[in-house]
Amino acid sequence: MKCRVCRGPAVIDIRRHNSNFCVDHFLKLCRDQVAKAIKQFSMLEPGDRVLVAVSGGKDSLALWDLLVELGYRADGLYVGLGIDGYSDVSGEFVRRFVEERGQTLVEVDLRADEGFDVPTAAAVTRRVPCSACGLSKRHLFDRAAREGGYDAVATGHNLDDEAAVLFGNLLKWQTDYLGRQRPMLPARDGFPRKVKPLVRLTERETAAYCVLRGIDYQVEECPMAAGNKHLGFKETLNDLEVRSPGAKHDLYFGFLDRAVDRFTSAGDGSGDVELGACAECGAPTTGEVCAFCRLAARARDAEPVALGPPRRRR
Amino acid sequence: MKCRVCRGPAVIDIRRHNSNFCVDHFLKLCRDQVAKAIKQFSMLEPGDRVLVAVSGGKDSLALWDLLVELGYRADGLYVGLGIDGYSDVSGEFVRRFVEERGQTLVEVDLRADEGFDVPTAAAVTRRVPCSACGLSKRHLFDRAAREGGYDAVATGHNLDDEAAVLFGNLLKWQTDYLGRQRPMLPARDGFPRKVKPLVRLTERETAAYCVLRGIDYQVEECPMAAGNKHLGFKETLNDLEVRSPGAKHDLYFGFLDRAVDRFTSAGDGSGDVELGACAECGAPTTGEVCAFCRLAARARDAEPVALGPPRRRR
Repeated sequence: MKCRVCRGPAVIDIRRHNSNFCVDHFLKLCRDQVAKAIKQFSMLEPGDRVLVAVSGGKDSLALWDLLVELGYRADGLYVGLGIDGYSDVSGEFVRRFVEERGQTLVEVDLRADEGFDVPTAAAVTRRVPCSACGLSKRHLFDRAAREGGYDAVATGHNLDDEAAVLFGNLLKWQTDYLGRQRPMLPARDGFPRKVKPLVRLTERETAAYCVLRGIDYQVEECPMAAGNKHLGFKETLNDLEVRSPGAKHDLYFGFLDRAVDRFTSAGDGSGDVELGACAECGAPTTGEVCAFCRLAARARDAEPVALGPPRRRR
Repeated sequence: MKCRVCRGPAVIDIRRHNSNFCVDHFLKLCRDQVAKAIKQFSMLEPGDRVLVAVSGGKDSLALWDLLVELGYRADGLYVGLGIDGYSDVSGEFVRRFVEERGQTLVEVDLRADEGFDVPTAAAVTRRVPCSACGLSKRHLFDRAAREGGYDAVATGHNLDDEAAVLFGNLLKWQTDYLGRQRPMLPARDGFPRKVKPLVRLTERETAAYCVLRGIDYQVEECPMAAGNKHLGFKETLNDLEVRSPGAKHDLYFGFLDRAVDRFTSAGDGSGDVELGACAECGAPTTGEVCAFCRLAARARDAEPVALGPPRRRR
């Protein structure tokens, strides 16, 4: 197995590129694919200050490293979710990365700073845990970006993630979600720009990147996500990819090329609704109090729960 | 297991309806679902003369029987494809149905009437066998409908078929195919109306319908279709259906409800291209000679091949 570029010994094969790569050219491929995604979707300008949402997993740490390698001013943001036996370990991986590489980290701890945790928030909603968690993270990312004056929030969603989300939205034809599923969402109404520079890399590639760059990361999946539909869709897409290398890429980039605009209402959906400031926290919201503050109030009032499925559904 | 309607002993469970049915109420369900599809998509009017494309398989024979049960004037059309060891058996099932039920059958034999067969036609193209076969069948269905003065051609495509075709088109975002994937295509430019009244039934249900109605059918899949992508997509959708009953229905009907119009160009795509008459056969075509006559000429010139993969690719 020889590197496509230099014919030296290859360490990884990438079937959808029909190619093998040595260490150096694989790392270059990763940088090139991220640079290409950034350019293709106008994600970042050279001088931008980027806040990278890091979880301690392979994707977000690879993203942070890649953005620094590409010359961006990128700081990290870690949100402690209060998932016992998981969040503490995740945080350690992030802090080790920061120490070893001399980067700047912003930390928010849901329990210490907001008075609740994800297991308790999940228990007070009637939805899967990932729903309360995603809502909380998006709110805290937006706030940290606003307060820190960052130009964009970058998240580590890779091709597997985006293809699986797309797949789930297609199975139910969730046309509103389809119209918003883009790797760059411009800043609007007090929300920062959101970018996903890893959409041209798979999770196998971000894992290999971390290993080859000496980045230690949390390998475990979040225990609260176990068995969720998203992971099932990833398995289905992995089966399709084995039969047809490039299937995920074609599904996702074909959608962006030829379909997403058909699901976006006239204009870009902004300006459809008037946004005011949340009475509690000042964040932009359509209601009196934003969804995060409403969730936080209910979670603070509830009896804290240990990790596990919600005991009660209200 | 009790019938949802009469609480008598049930013979079949249908998970996407979350219900069980006895023989009589299952047969009624099938008739009702076909009547609903016909109405929902304006497929047929009460007095219409329908030409049912029958292959000898469960779907097309069930369709013919159901249309007769629902009071339509429905004749059958059988095209002998010349696939040795398969087509002769298929034809026998069709003729037995016709004799037992006193229906009217139109027969076309590709070898006797057109001088070639599907294995040879498949060998002269550079594509999968189903491509030459589908082209030939569509042409012969259209011609028979024109010559016989039928109002519509009905085919036995069921929910599994349509969901699998849709799935394949989505994986590659074949937007032109997506825009045309409707269960009713109106007559235009010399082409008859095309309808798929079984889209609300799965192949498990059409098989059960045949068994319960005493209809004997060809159980074998066509040997030339073995291993094709369409069958792989059906497997994938079956896996999804097991995890989420109703997944196929939601995928297909969600598409028709909320997406297909987004892929149809202004108007309905008719009138985009000028059609003339084929110099050989008079069928409507965009070229001098229609695709069927061009394929037939090449296949007649080629050495006939036995069943099997194309020996040569030109």
